[in-house]
Amino acid sequence: MTLWGGRFSEPTDADLRRLNDSLPFDKRFADQDIRGSVAYTRAIQLAGIITPLEAEKIVDGLYRVQSEIASGNFEFQPSDEDIHTAVERRLIEIIGELGGKLHTGRSRNDQVATDFRLWAMEAVDEIITLIYGLQTALVNQADEHAATLMTGFTHLQPAQPITAGHWLMSYFWMIGRDVERLVDAKRRASVLPLGAGALSGNPFAIDRHDLAQQLGFDAISLNSLDAVSDRDFVAEILFALALLGVHLSRFAEDVIIYSNPSFGYIRLNDRYSTGSSLMPQKRNADPMELARGKAGRMIGNLTGLMATLKGLPSSYNKDMQEDKEALFDSVDTLKVLLPVVAAVAGTLHFNVEKMRESLDEMMLATDLADYLVKRGMPFRQAHHIAGEAVSLAEQRGVTLSQLSYEDYKGLHPLFESDIHTVFDFDQAVARRKGEGGTAPESVKKQVQRARLMLDRAQK
Amino acid sequence: MTLWGGRFSEPTDADLRRLNDSLPFDKRFADQDIRGSVAYTRAIQLAGIITPLEAEKIVDGLYRVQSEIASGNFEFQPSDEDIHTAVERRLIEIIGELGGKLHTGRSRNDQVATDFRLWAMEAVDEIITLIYGLQTALVNQADEHAATLMTGFTHLQPAQPITAGHWLMSYFWMIGRDVERLVDAKRRASVLPLGAGALSGNPFAIDRHDLAQQLGFDAISLNSLDAVSDRDFVAEILFALALLGVHLSRFAEDVIIYSNPSFGYIRLNDRYSTGSSLMPQKRNADPMELARGKAGRMIGNLTGLMATLKGLPSSYNKDMQEDKEALFDSVDTLKVLLPVVAAVAGTLHFNVEKMRESLDEMMLATDLADYLVKRGMPFRQAHHIAGEAVSLAEQRGVTLSQLSYEDYKGLHPLFESDIHTVFDFDQAVARRKGEGGTAPESVKKQVQRARLMLDRAQK
Amino acid sequence: MTLWGGRFSEPTDADLRRLNDSLPFDKRFADQDIRGSVAYTRAIQLAGIITPLEAEKIVDGLYRVQSEIASGNFEFQPSDEDIHTAVERRLIEIIGELGGKLHTGRSRNDQVATDFRLWAMEAVDEIITLIYGLQTALVNQADEHAATLMTGFTHLQPAQPITAGHWLMSYFWMIGRDVERLVDAKRRASVLPLGAGALSGNPFAIDRHDLAQQLGFDAISLNSLDAVSDRDFVAEILFALALLGVHLSRFAEDVIIYSNPSFGYIRLNDRYSTGSSLMPQKRNADPMELARGKAGRMIGNLTGLMATLKGLPSSYNKDMQEDKEALFDSVDTLKVLLPVVAAVAGTLHFNVEKMRESLDEMMLATDLADYLVKRGMPFRQAHHIAGEAVSLAEQRGVTLSQLSYEDYKGLHPLFESDIHTVFDFDQAVARRKGEGGTAPESVKKQVQRARLMLDRAQK
Amino acid sequence: MTLWGGRFSEPTDADLRRLNDSLPFDKRFADQDIRGSVAYTRAIQLAGIITPLEAEKIVDGLYRVQSEIASGNFEFQPSDEDIHTAVERRLIEIIGELGGKLHTGRSRNDQVATDFRLWAMEAVDEIITLIYGLQTALVNQADEHAATLMTGFTHLQPAQPITAGHWLMSYFWMIGRDVERLVDAKRRASVLPLGAGALSGNPFAIDRHDLAQQLGFDAISLNSLDAVSDRDFVAEILFALALLGVHLSRFAEDVIIYSNPSFGYIRLNDRYSTGSSLMPQKRNADPMELARGKAGRMIGNLTGLMATLKGLPSSYNKDMQEDKEALFDSVDTLKVLLPVVAAVAGTLHFNVEKMRESLDEMMLATDLADYLVKRGMPFRQAHHIAGEAVSLAEQRGVTLSQLSYEDYKGLHPLFESDIHTVFDFDQAVARRKGEGGTAPESVKKQVQRARLMLDRAQK
Repeated sequence: MTLWGGRFSEPTDADLRRLNDSLPFDKRFADQDIRGSVAYTRAIQLAGIITPLEAEKIVDGLYRVQSEIASGNFEFQPSDEDIHTAVERRLIEIIGELGGKLHTGRSRNDQVATDFRLWAMEAVDEIITLIYGLQTALVNQADEHAATLMTGFTHLQPAQPITAGHWLMSYFWMIGRDVERLVDAKRRASVLPLGAGALSGNPFAIDRHDLAQQLGFDAISLNSLDAVSDRDFVAEILFALALLGVHLSRFAEDVIIYSNPSFGYIRLNDRYSTGSSLMPQKRNADPMELARGKAGRMIGNLTGLMATLKGLPSSYNKDMQEDKEALFDSVDTLKVLLPVVAAVAGTLHFNVEKMRESLDEMMLATDLADYLVKRGMPFRQAHHIAGEAVSLAEQRGVTLSQLSYEDYKGLHPLFESDIHTVFDFDQAVARRKGEGGTAPESVKKQVQRARLMLDRAQK
Repeated sequence: MTLWGGRFSEPTDADLRRLNDSLPFDKRFADQDIRGSVAYTRAIQLAGIITPLEAEKIVDGLYRVQSEIASGNFEFQPSDEDIHTAVERRLIEIIGELGGKLHTGRSRNDQVATDFRLWAMEAVDEIITLIYGLQTALVNQADEHAATLMTGFTHLQPAQPITAGHWLMSYFWMIGRDVERLVDAKRRASVLPLGAGALSGNPFAIDRHDLAQQLGFDAISLNSLDAVSDRDFVAEILFALALLGVHLSRFAEDVIIYSNPSFGYIRLNDRYSTGSSLMPQKRNADPMELARGKAGRMIGNLTGLMATLKGLPSSYNKDMQEDKEALFDSVDTLKVLLPVVAAVAGTLHFNVEKMRESLDEMMLATDLADYLVKRGMPFRQAHHIAGEAVSLAEQRGVTLSQLSYEDYKGLHPLFESDIHTVFDFDQAVARRKGEGGTAPESVKKQVQRARLMLDRAQK
Repeated sequence: MTLWGGRFSEPTDADLRRLNDSLPFDKRFADQDIRGSVAYTRAIQLAGIITPLEAEKIVDGLYRVQSEIASGNFEFQPSDEDIHTAVERRLIEIIGELGGKLHTGRSRNDQVATDFRLWAMEAVDEIITLIYGLQTALVNQADEHAATLMTGFTHLQPAQPITAGHWLMSYFWMIGRDVERLVDAKRRASVLPLGAGALSGNPFAIDRHDLAQQLGFDAISLNSLDAVSDRDFVAEILFALALLGVHLSRFAEDVIIYSNPSFGYIRLNDRYSTGSSLMPQKRNADPMELARGKAGRMIGNLTGLMATLKGLPSSYNKDMQEDKEALFDSVDTLKVLLPVVAAVAGTLHFNVEKMRESLDEMMLATDLADYLVKRGMPFRQAHHIAGEAVSLAEQRGVTLSQLSYEDYKGLHPLFESDIHTVFDFDQAVARRKGEGGTAPESVKKQVQRARLMLDRAQK
Repeated sequence: MTLWGGRFSEPTDADLRRLNDSLPFDKRFADQDIRGSVAYTRAIQLAGIITPLEAEKIVDGLYRVQSEIASGNFEFQPSDEDIHTAVERRLIEIIGELGGKLHTGRSRNDQVATDFRLWAMEAVDEIITLIYGLQTALVNQADEHAATLMTGFTHLQPAQPITAGHWLMSYFWMIGRDVERLVDAKRRASVLPLGAGALSGNPFAIDRHDLAQQLGFDAISLNSLDAVSDRDFVAEILFALALLGVHLSRFAEDVIIYSNPSFGYIRLNDRYSTGSSLMPQKRNADPMELARGKAGRMIGNLTGLMATLKGLPSSYNKDMQEDKEALFDSVDTLKVLLPVVAAVAGTLHFNVEKMRESLDEMMLATDLADYLVKRGMPFRQAHHIAGEAVSLAEQRGVTLSQLSYEDYKGLHPLFESDIHTVFDFDQAVARRKGEGGTAPESVKKQVQRARLMLDRAQK
């Protein structure tokens, strides 16, 4: 039986039930629902609606339902349209009509909002832990490759030499911001809706602050109409996860390109590579391609929810039932994806020789210009002369250090005999030692700072 | 065993398998996969790769796999990473190593594209049939209410009287365009990729036109690189379904508003209404709210896929595995939703009296202006004078017909004693009898045309 | 002249310039660009690259460029591909080749990221101020209508009586969360990229902390690769603005529905209503419809940027130039929209009588159930009996208070002669006086708290 | 003056005007609006509302307005809220009150829908012409490089040798589908809404079929409610353009990767390359990055419109004003982008030697398996043995042809002395000569077919 049949003359249509019932997905809230009901039992007891003895019986009954569900012995009935109905139905089967007192003053509107917030807060914590796992893999690799040189790109064209550690740490900090956003989102999710009733509040003198404390919420909602229809927390978490997905897609793009043999900078561990049903030689970076592709999916989940919320009238509307599957999907996606990305990152093999071989002196053209700058020439002019040196070298089919001292002198008299000291990749990298720079020295500092942060966070 | 392990030294990581395996969702292609393989068996026989006897054995084996799956007796193995692997694995178990000849010249890249196109073409047909069901419900109601008057809105403000039949038929034509778009999308999906191999084509002399004919494709793909990575058909169908979803959301919005008691135009059948766990009097239009909300979800599915496809390098990339669940979700959503919307539409109760009572003479202000136009006044001036009549009536707290002949004469001498003939809702509606107008006469013609179209389509 | 022509043999194609040039939109950064350059001048002086006298000349020149732009006397040249080029070009025209020293160690990659963050931080402040304006309008109206009764809806069906002030305050708190999100987003935007160079850092000993302080940033970026390509702040602000847009769309939907004459709860001021070119009587809530519609546009801006960022390789890529117009559009949209929504909200006329007349005793069915609960009956059973009362009243075509004491007694013996005290809307509302409830008492507390918050925020 | 002030007591608020007025963007419809009005003038003359002489005067006036606008001499007034108002206002200034007859029976609702459809149909034609330009560039290059060998990738890992012409033609066919979709979308846009009035139809006996013919529409709308609010054509074109954008983004991704020096397959012409303000040696493929990035923007435009349309009530709502800028933006984006992409494609320099050098014999592993297949071995087994050959070669650090006949014999006795004939890239490619395959022979056929198609289309 549904919780609301009293005034209806006809049973609900079977097709509608298939459309309407949320049990297939909201049964994931079983635990949160029961914890919420246990807390609510204490609230209505304190408000004098039930006696301490009744409260005890209800709570015992709820725990029994909980253990039935946990053990897989719970039998859902065709009439259970959602998890709330299922739990209350079973509670009444176990403890009798007394179970019907639990819902006093409460609506599924404030109940589901409470369950979902609890679930979301816990999901955020799990995702953050998984991000730490990926960050740990990145920082370990960065530590090892703090001084490993590779070509740094902008526009995917060779730009300046960088260190592999610096490249790795760029992703460390990037996903570190995702943690911050998730923490903020969780804080805003941590607002108790229970006590809002269907829309107008609870007419019984329940203590909402006590409820919040029992359930681990930081605050209580200040307006019941808002409380039952606020899905900002879902949108905000979906956004944070989609942006995390975008970050993973960028890391994936790099790994895919760098593991192409023409680059050959890195190689995925066999355990994280896959083959082809047709082409026997194939080694594909499937997990990275999926990481890239799934960013799209998570963007879609965010877009979908926002389009759903747009233009809804005040308070609860059934459209909001669409909030759950989107978040479940993004969370589930990342719970499968993040450990794999962490494992890939942690087991990436860097082909240090190939990375160094990739360095082309043309990438030192900026340092060539800086050479002139240090001798007093305005940078804009120095940039132009260095550009001419590049052209000259290209025309001759040589590289910058193969131009002679006379060639340089011919380009500008400020060039001196020490010009060839410029063409040293290690020195070029070492010069970028300021905070945030690519120098090994800077990478080591980043690693140190990162480890400290991870240590603190995981305490 | 996977289809590709030969060159790998280590087994695939279990976490990666969880991320990578598509069997949990692509097993929906079992039937298409087997039909594709049966056709391909004939193709490689004609190309002389296998003998007629071998072909017969393979086909028999495939049919046995098919019947095992159909009957639910098929046992998937942990090693089955996708449906193609599962089918081939089982085929070899049944008929021996000969089964290993089936994949000659074929790749999972062209195989899955073939399966998916077949599935999509069939899904489109199912959706179209369901749209016909909704169109039938709408046309039947429109026929009955061709002359039922109600307030017509623009900007959700009373605009002009219309007929309920006209309102209903507006949705008929709207979703009729969805059918057209789906038909076009199906036509473009009906292009055989099989024979493209992994990316470069098939080195054996298979007859792709014969394959297309066997499988019911209209044409064959003209470029193998394009063939294995073309997911336009998915995007196009997702778009057509999302726009259908938007149309349903608009119908839903109207029904939700019109069934609010302040309007009271329509009432949902009890079988399609739901109640509240807290408020005993509640009758909610849940199915309509879900119809409205699910439009967001389908927009998200479209957005997600397009973001996934954006920027992919040439030919097949694993990101494309993300194409399936999006389409499955939109199709499944509509297969549950459309029958309910059709049933709601077909059983809507129109409160004819309340609809007529809602008519306000202010909505005839345009006809008042037209009265002056017919007497030679430029419309722009007539509009202004009718606006003054509205103001005057509002100030006096009366309606337009309660203004006296003298009042009108005072506004402009062109008003004559027949002015009160303007204030007739039925006449106002009847005047809009041109093609596409709201007059009962026009609605009847729309209904006739619609029935003809449905009859033809469903033959 | 571009800043980079040195090595190229052919001029850039004119069509490409049209595609590539960002000046048409990034000239909005003129002020930020110059402030950034002034700060950078001091940085390279402190690093010993230029003398104090040179620094003074450059800064003077920059201020002259600034005043030319501010006064509208700046002449952009066809060669100015972006604002950075334009400013440097003009600086050199004014102060000579010395101006070419400014770009030492700096790239447009870190420069534009700095400009954009400064612009975004200021834009966020402006939006927040406009939100306060809307909040002020809402709280003033809520104060006045703290005890004005109206129908409260869930599923747009009558649910329970609420106060208009409570309805208004629900939007106050809703958009209050938008302020919080914007504050968080601004904090994360407040990280200085300058000093990251093109991608690898700055080889000169510039003091980035001093730069941050000069420009008003809270922190400096910790990784140069990340710094030049981090557009999280754009995505995060776009998200916050899109969600604000969704909130405005919900308020708009309510206002549109409540101002339909069948409801007649509210009426927009004439100054914020519009008419029809055809129908003289029309009064449309155009600004509210645009508020609703523009939420879609802002969702699109967010989606577009996230799709653009997805899958980009490490560090700066030109795709990122697409970041600006999306944010400009969402900010500009809200800067036009928010003042109008605030004005509409502040001048809404509430038809207090019509709102009270809309109250239907059926909405007290929950209170009827609560009556039985207080006499010891489990709520679930009480809900069922109240549902039967609703059915009985509907069958008789009467309302709940028109059922007799005997009728109630017949439904259940717990009903007593005081049953008719239940049917008092004011009492029903007053009972919801707990924190967040709809009672006038609670609304007054919300108003008080809100005013305090606004006062503090605007100090 | 607005067209509707008659009943209002207060002027519209200035802020609202800024929000509401569409003139800043809808003035692009000037020409369509006037053509629509000229046609409508004839329609109301035929319906007997105006005399032939009046019609002549109105038409003359409209043409004068048209020429004022075309010549830039038209002065917009602050009161012109949209292009329709501006044209009617000016018409009346020129020909007097008679101009006020033009709007008889017409509403801006059917007028703007007519204008927009005309504009959209013309925009589609322009985009299609630009696509032909890109297709021509692709087919010319493909013709030249029909036999140029390069590495073909799946998962961006070397897969099989392909021809550059085949790669180029894959994009030809891909964007050919965009043309088809645009043609379908245009056909569905070609439905005349004029005559729908504000929502209920036109009460005068105008001949809508004649109107359609005058204006070049294929059909007339069948339901006035639908006609004024149908924006499917905008959504459909936005979708087709976004998918075209996705296709361009994929081509761009390939070009960006292939022009990285580690690949070095192709080089952009200097005219289409750009440099860096900091790094003198830079040659960036900016236009390709913008092509990739702008796909995101166009996905955003589509998403935004669909979210805006979702859940709108019946007939016209002001939200629909948001339809224009999205389409303008996508069309304008492509009108700037497509010529550049065509120019880049047409001037791409292929480094034929580097492409051939990239070929690795491991990519012939499939052909090695096929060798065994031809000798009777089931492919699945052959695939495994070829995989072992790959492993063996990798272990020895040699390539497949460097394994000896004995090595192969050791792997399987079916290997014969002719085994080394397998390792011929040209032969491997030539074998894929079936329709759609990568063989030069197949590419030539594709080119021929493509040229025929282009010739026909452009006639």
